[in-house]
Amino acid sequence: MPRLLDLPSLRPSDRVQDPLLVRDVEEKSYAGGRFTILTLGNATGAIESAPVWDSDRAMVEGIRQGHVVQVIGQVGQYNGRRQLEISSLRLLPEGGVDFAQLLPSVGDPAPYWEKLDGWRREIGPRKPRLAAVLALFYDDDDFRHRYERCPASVAGHHAALGGLLKHTVEVGFIARAIAKVAGADNDLVLAGVLLHDIGKLEAYRWDGVFEHTDAGHLVGHVVLSALALERRLAGADPPPCTAQERDLLRHLILAHHGRLEFGSPVPPLTLEAEVLHWADNASAKTASLADALRDTDAFGEGLVAQRRIWQIENRRPYRGVSDWGSAE
Amino acid sequence: MPRLLDLPSLRPSDRVQDPLLVRDVEEKSYAGGRFTILTLGNATGAIESAPVWDSDRAMVEGIRQGHVVQVIGQVGQYNGRRQLEISSLRLLPEGGVDFAQLLPSVGDPAPYWEKLDGWRREIGPRKPRLAAVLALFYDDDDFRHRYERCPASVAGHHAALGGLLKHTVEVGFIARAIAKVAGADNDLVLAGVLLHDIGKLEAYRWDGVFEHTDAGHLVGHVVLSALALERRLAGADPPPCTAQERDLLRHLILAHHGRLEFGSPVPPLTLEAEVLHWADNASAKTASLADALRDTDAFGEGLVAQRRIWQIENRRPYRGVSDWGSAE
Amino acid sequence: MPRLLDLPSLRPSDRVQDPLLVRDVEEKSYAGGRFTILTLGNATGAIESAPVWDSDRAMVEGIRQGHVVQVIGQVGQYNGRRQLEISSLRLLPEGGVDFAQLLPSVGDPAPYWEKLDGWRREIGPRKPRLAAVLALFYDDDDFRHRYERCPASVAGHHAALGGLLKHTVEVGFIARAIAKVAGADNDLVLAGVLLHDIGKLEAYRWDGVFEHTDAGHLVGHVVLSALALERRLAGADPPPCTAQERDLLRHLILAHHGRLEFGSPVPPLTLEAEVLHWADNASAKTASLADALRDTDAFGEGLVAQRRIWQIENRRPYRGVSDWGSAE
Amino acid sequence: MPRLLDLPSLRPSDRVQDPLLVRDVEEKSYAGGRFTILTLGNATGAIESAPVWDSDRAMVEGIRQGHVVQVIGQVGQYNGRRQLEISSLRLLPEGGVDFAQLLPSVGDPAPYWEKLDGWRREIGPRKPRLAAVLALFYDDDDFRHRYERCPASVAGHHAALGGLLKHTVEVGFIARAIAKVAGADNDLVLAGVLLHDIGKLEAYRWDGVFEHTDAGHLVGHVVLSALALERRLAGADPPPCTAQERDLLRHLILAHHGRLEFGSPVPPLTLEAEVLHWADNASAKTASLADALRDTDAFGEGLVAQRRIWQIENRRPYRGVSDWGSAE
Amino acid sequence: MPRLLDLPSLRPSDRVQDPLLVRDVEEKSYAGGRFTILTLGNATGAIESAPVWDSDRAMVEGIRQGHVVQVIGQVGQYNGRRQLEISSLRLLPEGGVDFAQLLPSVGDPAPYWEKLDGWRREIGPRKPRLAAVLALFYDDDDFRHRYERCPASVAGHHAALGGLLKHTVEVGFIARAIAKVAGADNDLVLAGVLLHDIGKLEAYRWDGVFEHTDAGHLVGHVVLSALALERRLAGADPPPCTAQERDLLRHLILAHHGRLEFGSPVPPLTLEAEVLHWADNASAKTASLADALRDTDAFGEGLVAQRRIWQIENRRPYRGVSDWGSAE
Amino acid sequence: MPRLLDLPSLRPSDRVQDPLLVRDVEEKSYAGGRFTILTLGNATGAIESAPVWDSDRAMVEGIRQGHVVQVIGQVGQYNGRRQLEISSLRLLPEGGVDFAQLLPSVGDPAPYWEKLDGWRREIGPRKPRLAAVLALFYDDDDFRHRYERCPASVAGHHAALGGLLKHTVEVGFIARAIAKVAGADNDLVLAGVLLHDIGKLEAYRWDGVFEHTDAGHLVGHVVLSALALERRLAGADPPPCTAQERDLLRHLILAHHGRLEFGSPVPPLTLEAEVLHWADNASAKTASLADALRDTDAFGEGLVAQRRIWQIENRRPYRGVSDWGSAE
Repeated sequence: MPRLLDLPSLRPSDRVQDPLLVRDVEEKSYAGGRFTILTLGNATGAIESAPVWDSDRAMVEGIRQGHVVQVIGQVGQYNGRRQLEISSLRLLPEGGVDFAQLLPSVGDPAPYWEKLDGWRREIGPRKPRLAAVLALFYDDDDFRHRYERCPASVAGHHAALGGLLKHTVEVGFIARAIAKVAGADNDLVLAGVLLHDIGKLEAYRWDGVFEHTDAGHLVGHVVLSALALERRLAGADPPPCTAQERDLLRHLILAHHGRLEFGSPVPPLTLEAEVLHWADNASAKTASLADALRDTDAFGEGLVAQRRIWQIENRRPYRGVSDWGSAE
Repeated sequence: MPRLLDLPSLRPSDRVQDPLLVRDVEEKSYAGGRFTILTLGNATGAIESAPVWDSDRAMVEGIRQGHVVQVIGQVGQYNGRRQLEISSLRLLPEGGVDFAQLLPSVGDPAPYWEKLDGWRREIGPRKPRLAAVLALFYDDDDFRHRYERCPASVAGHHAALGGLLKHTVEVGFIARAIAKVAGADNDLVLAGVLLHDIGKLEAYRWDGVFEHTDAGHLVGHVVLSALALERRLAGADPPPCTAQERDLLRHLILAHHGRLEFGSPVPPLTLEAEVLHWADNASAKTASLADALRDTDAFGEGLVAQRRIWQIENRRPYRGVSDWGSAE
Repeated sequence: MPRLLDLPSLRPSDRVQDPLLVRDVEEKSYAGGRFTILTLGNATGAIESAPVWDSDRAMVEGIRQGHVVQVIGQVGQYNGRRQLEISSLRLLPEGGVDFAQLLPSVGDPAPYWEKLDGWRREIGPRKPRLAAVLALFYDDDDFRHRYERCPASVAGHHAALGGLLKHTVEVGFIARAIAKVAGADNDLVLAGVLLHDIGKLEAYRWDGVFEHTDAGHLVGHVVLSALALERRLAGADPPPCTAQERDLLRHLILAHHGRLEFGSPVPPLTLEAEVLHWADNASAKTASLADALRDTDAFGEGLVAQRRIWQIENRRPYRGVSDWGSAE
Repeated sequence: MPRLLDLPSLRPSDRVQDPLLVRDVEEKSYAGGRFTILTLGNATGAIESAPVWDSDRAMVEGIRQGHVVQVIGQVGQYNGRRQLEISSLRLLPEGGVDFAQLLPSVGDPAPYWEKLDGWRREIGPRKPRLAAVLALFYDDDDFRHRYERCPASVAGHHAALGGLLKHTVEVGFIARAIAKVAGADNDLVLAGVLLHDIGKLEAYRWDGVFEHTDAGHLVGHVVLSALALERRLAGADPPPCTAQERDLLRHLILAHHGRLEFGSPVPPLTLEAEVLHWADNASAKTASLADALRDTDAFGEGLVAQRRIWQIENRRPYRGVSDWGSAE
Repeated sequence: MPRLLDLPSLRPSDRVQDPLLVRDVEEKSYAGGRFTILTLGNATGAIESAPVWDSDRAMVEGIRQGHVVQVIGQVGQYNGRRQLEISSLRLLPEGGVDFAQLLPSVGDPAPYWEKLDGWRREIGPRKPRLAAVLALFYDDDDFRHRYERCPASVAGHHAALGGLLKHTVEVGFIARAIAKVAGADNDLVLAGVLLHDIGKLEAYRWDGVFEHTDAGHLVGHVVLSALALERRLAGADPPPCTAQERDLLRHLILAHHGRLEFGSPVPPLTLEAEVLHWADNASAKTASLADALRDTDAFGEGLVAQRRIWQIENRRPYRGVSDWGSAE
Repeated sequence: MPRLLDLPSLRPSDRVQDPLLVRDVEEKSYAGGRFTILTLGNATGAIESAPVWDSDRAMVEGIRQGHVVQVIGQVGQYNGRRQLEISSLRLLPEGGVDFAQLLPSVGDPAPYWEKLDGWRREIGPRKPRLAAVLALFYDDDDFRHRYERCPASVAGHHAALGGLLKHTVEVGFIARAIAKVAGADNDLVLAGVLLHDIGKLEAYRWDGVFEHTDAGHLVGHVVLSALALERRLAGADPPPCTAQERDLLRHLILAHHGRLEFGSPVPPLTLEAEVLHWADNASAKTASLADALRDTDAFGEGLVAQRRIWQIENRRPYRGVSDWGSAE
């Protein structure tokens, strides 16, 4: 595999001859006509194009978000900002594309699987029926293949290829700490961690663009997770667990958003569901704030973000830090 | 079948020798000991017992809500209120009881079935796959047997044997009117009406007492309905409908409470789901208000209820009416 | 009357020489100056103009929303969208304009009146005093004249000439179904339907533009309806109904929004007010969702709307449909 | 007029032979039967009776809240609390009762009228049409007679005979200060003060008990105030003010609760309505907190109230004070 | 001091040669490049510049919000709006600037101090320890110097140099009226008035631009006020007041926003804290509405604002007035 | 120290001769008089007394919540519940009482200190100024003495002697996991953990009864924590940290409740504050749910609690468990 073009480190007059993903297509108008600006990216980041004027319009005709294009051009600069001056742009066929090179990604999934499968091995001898339910999913290669690619959200926390797997392991790590302190059943909590978001495989698509599927819109990932469990259980003969156990697992899945107004049709009623809820929240919310703090565009020259950021409930975070005398 | 004792028409000195259902058991204390008051009912209504003193405590030992007892006694009066002075009370075996005689009931289900099955016959020729999904449930005698007994809530609207069936037909009747006005697909709306509450069969129990099951608590009737659909669809080969059609039905079920904070994990996004939501609300909310207006105890001598009634969001309804000159 | 120009069916190079209503005037700026875009419409729909440059500015000087103009021009195309290239534009005098040709309209009011007056005829013999109150308004030709033109909202549901009358009949149709199911007094419910929005005649204006009047802003249509009733009752001698009956009607009007936070100063306390509230909601909310689904611009090529739509509480509706095998 | 019995200063073994108002009748039960406790009051305060046992039941038969009774008895003591041991109790005829002696009262209304009429005299020369509208009410002796008796609420702030008049003057006093600071039209603000609660005359009754009338329930005092204005204006020929002026006054009345969820169908949109709203709030809310701080029963021996008090939004007030060294 | 240029009265072709404050710098783009528009102001108002094209870009390079510049130019007109055509622009050194000339200002602070210090003189003899606490701040010249400049908000009510002092005196004026009516301790209320916003000195900056400081963001002015009190008390030996008195003052400060969701960590629990809260609200909210009514740009030609104004909770105010016949 | 009486294991006819803490004193009335029931407890649990009749009233005269009494009596049984029949009860002097024996307690604080001080030792070399701030409190023996006794709430989570210390260590344990996952500064997070609740030492009292102090009511523990930090910093010369560092610590303390409506005057704006908030929530909320599940009285014979429990937001938890086949 050829080395990936490192977009953030491009400097004016650098030349580009690489496949890039079209992240956004914006049409703008001025008195004399209209022009188009593309946002092009790969796994390393993104860059905006220079305006494509009407005279070159044929070059971008039909190009849409999610397309992969072979781009030839040169980095220019306008008013202090880099822009990619495109001299040639060619749509690549869908088949030959490796989105892992072209979309934000959490990287190699192996270490996450190692952690996650390790938890399953712990559970196995202690709670065979619980392990059997998890195996319905996590022993299925097709499931694993999709699970290690799916993002954890389309535009919020862990919105990257593999983000769902990374988020799952983070939730598990936090949930173990909470479960220990709260005296909850660690195995059952971890099973909840592994099952709570499985419906995202049906709720999102990540083939060039992160979006909700129609089922994601109409049903929501919370219930899609419960339905996925129902389907796998219905297909297993004999049933791997009892009816009460099934209800406990359904509850873990359905209650993980914590409150009705956040999309859980029932609030947590067991200690394990409560632990899962807070661990999930802790992973998601702190990841969102960390993302917001990394978005240097939002800060300008100050320490306080200059605009409200919807991903963190319209707060304006503060990025000031101190060494607390460590260097003295 | 013997004639049912008409509890509301009992007068002081009337004698009772009938099977009654124990609706409530209240223990009260005074300085010299404790006494027990039973609330006893059948399909016609309910009556409170006179205090059962400690000296007679053996008579009520072990008697609990939901039990059916053979009662011998006489109606007395205390401070203007009737009370049943019990001279003998005997627990009846569970097997031989007809709860339809002992619990509030909507009466004969046949007219409701006639209406409902008529709707299915309309749908059949027009939308064969939709009719096929409905048939998975409504052609199943066991399902029908349970559906015509299940209440529509445990202590709110249509809390009676057969209440769910009656509510379903009411919602259908209203939904047809709304669908016509709104230009919605009448068949799909009616399918939503017939499916939206099927999970109540698993969420409630009605064997002497109306209560949530554990699954009802942990999962809720909204998602139980969606899971029931999933299970029947998973068991049908070939699938009676397409994946998109399944998502439309799932959505009708899940969105029928209208808002996340009311327990729907997704809000209505199709016109048919919107129609179903308002029809369901109209049936449930007006039934609750009608019930509140019939509760003469709440009014005393006035036209405005003397206390807030939780079933209607703590309102105090007004029962004043006028003939608007009709007699003149 | 000359045939109305069908705006939606205009194609490039078609010529226009017709009176049109100015629905919107937008000024935009670019480096070399500013330009103006008009949105022009009639009862069939609307079309945007091509930019009117500064050189032609005199042509649009003084033109404002609500004006009627005689337009000569030709349909052009820009970037795939039609635009009307105006060669001449002349303000028409206010007097000779028929807004029914120029604004969105529900069409002929006669069928709605037939339905509505039929209800009044039902009420008459059964409840003479109730019919007498309704007659204070509905036997008044001036009231009828205004009522059959007034829109039901300025930018939401039934925002069209005659929209209020259409909405009234829809609410009545739904309310009859709910009243029957709920055991409410059908006549009183219908009276509420006919009175609940009469204040909109004073709250809105529809002379070229749909807007709130100052009274609409300062008082609101809910209370304006109650005040209109008060005024007509004060002018009737002898009073057509009793004081209690008047309070029941006032309550129907005031409670029809259902909750304080939605603008009703009192919540529904009678069964008839509850029925009216849900019928009104069902008509308004489903109409809004149906409108949103018809707005093809919001969907692009997908089945889910690409933006949140404020008229339906920021939901993104789904327009996917199925034939459910009807063609097989 | 005979001297009023000072209830708060009664001491054990004092004898009572006075007319008192029945404020409450509570029936309590014990094993051997039931007993009744009356709360009896006059304008100075209230006292509870000793239990009236079944043997004396005839004495209290038919006695209800709001009755006036001639009581003969003696003050006893039970567990440290005073109680009135009744030896004779006789219902007094309705006609001969002076409720001003028997209900909580703000006392002589004259000083309040002086202040209020003074404001009207200020307005008169400056704004003749505004004064004319106020005169429709405040020059009417019947209106004044009722206004100086009506309470400002049934169980909240200023719940006393004359409370409405006192509250009106308080609001006016505060509103003048706010209007001056805010640059609002002082005359119009005062007119709003004088009109905003006139509907309470129809919303409350105070003939022995403070309660909502049916109209108070069904319509609410906010809209009753607007309707009262409408009626008086409809009866005045020629109209004392213009249509716009009428809308400004309607708005002052309707917006005075400030927000929809507090019962105002429109929020304040003029500076005068905003001033009125805050002045009304300041009078009502601080009066409620002052009442709560005076309720010594709520505090026990501590400085913080031992229970949440609903009249002040479930807060537990603090009654600690300091002399800040004034005595040093 | 030279006469201040009166910006609102400038007319086309007037010449400008004055120091002005840069209130805003907006970069806009068009096809051929970008241009910059400056908003320039002084204490009399503000004016926008004509576009500064790329060719003159050097002139505005490095110019930022809060800078003071010496401007030479001439007033032009574009599309009916005035714009300042800048021929020369020079950054002035920070030292020699008098912001009182360049920022919105309440004007001479002396009358406000007179009122405020008068209140302190009243308190002194009556409550020496209370006066001593106030003196910790108000006898400190540095504190006074900053207090008379600080705005009361950065973009809401009293956002002007000296706005905090003016607001303080307004709150005091209103609070005295409420305290009198409510029977609250007037001295303690006034002390609360003088202390409740002292943290704004640390929460805001006003050196050319009104903004939150980092401490203002991280701590908030409510708690900064309490911390300022803590620090001054910690530095006073012997303590000027008792521990209970300190808690009463802390409470006055912390509770002045009235509710948790408005940023008060505790709700008002004393009568004085309640009075302060309503007085503060009355001053702030009516000032915001008065400001909104003065913003003629928001109204166009109508009486109702054409857009929702966030400073007054998204209301659209009404500016219609009447003389109520005063001229007749 | 004598062995502690194990209250939960007492059986009928067991004799008691021990010091016990009066947890509650309830007076109840019946027709013939009143009686008193005491709830008596020690660190092992609690037991109710049999009724103390009027004839024995002298025995309980003056006994109040928080008193320690020497009790002689015998365990009886009434209606299946144990009750302590008291034959003698003597108030013990305040001095000689060891509350650690008489109140719920988390037991030996040493292991918690070991963990907590270990964290401080980690921080020391890495961030000397941060460690210096913590040392202002945690090197102070008096502070430690109080901190290891203070409960974490008066009636919610960790309401036990030493509960605050235990909760602190739990929060630290969870926070380390979240900080690691989120990439937050672990040292700063832990400093926040150690400081966030220090104000509870002034907000609560635990001398026989867990209650809010007056300062706790008037100021709240959140701000008391910030004030405590302010005071210690003001007393340290030279200041142990910079002004920015102080603001970061203030923010950690003030934002730990996460939202304004939960009592934080500012929401979390730094990553460390966000981590602290979720860790605090996770410890508190799961502890509350675990407590609720242990309250066997709430469940009766079922798996779902029979009443709503306010400590967990009125949920009714489910206590069903499964072994998931572990025994097979």
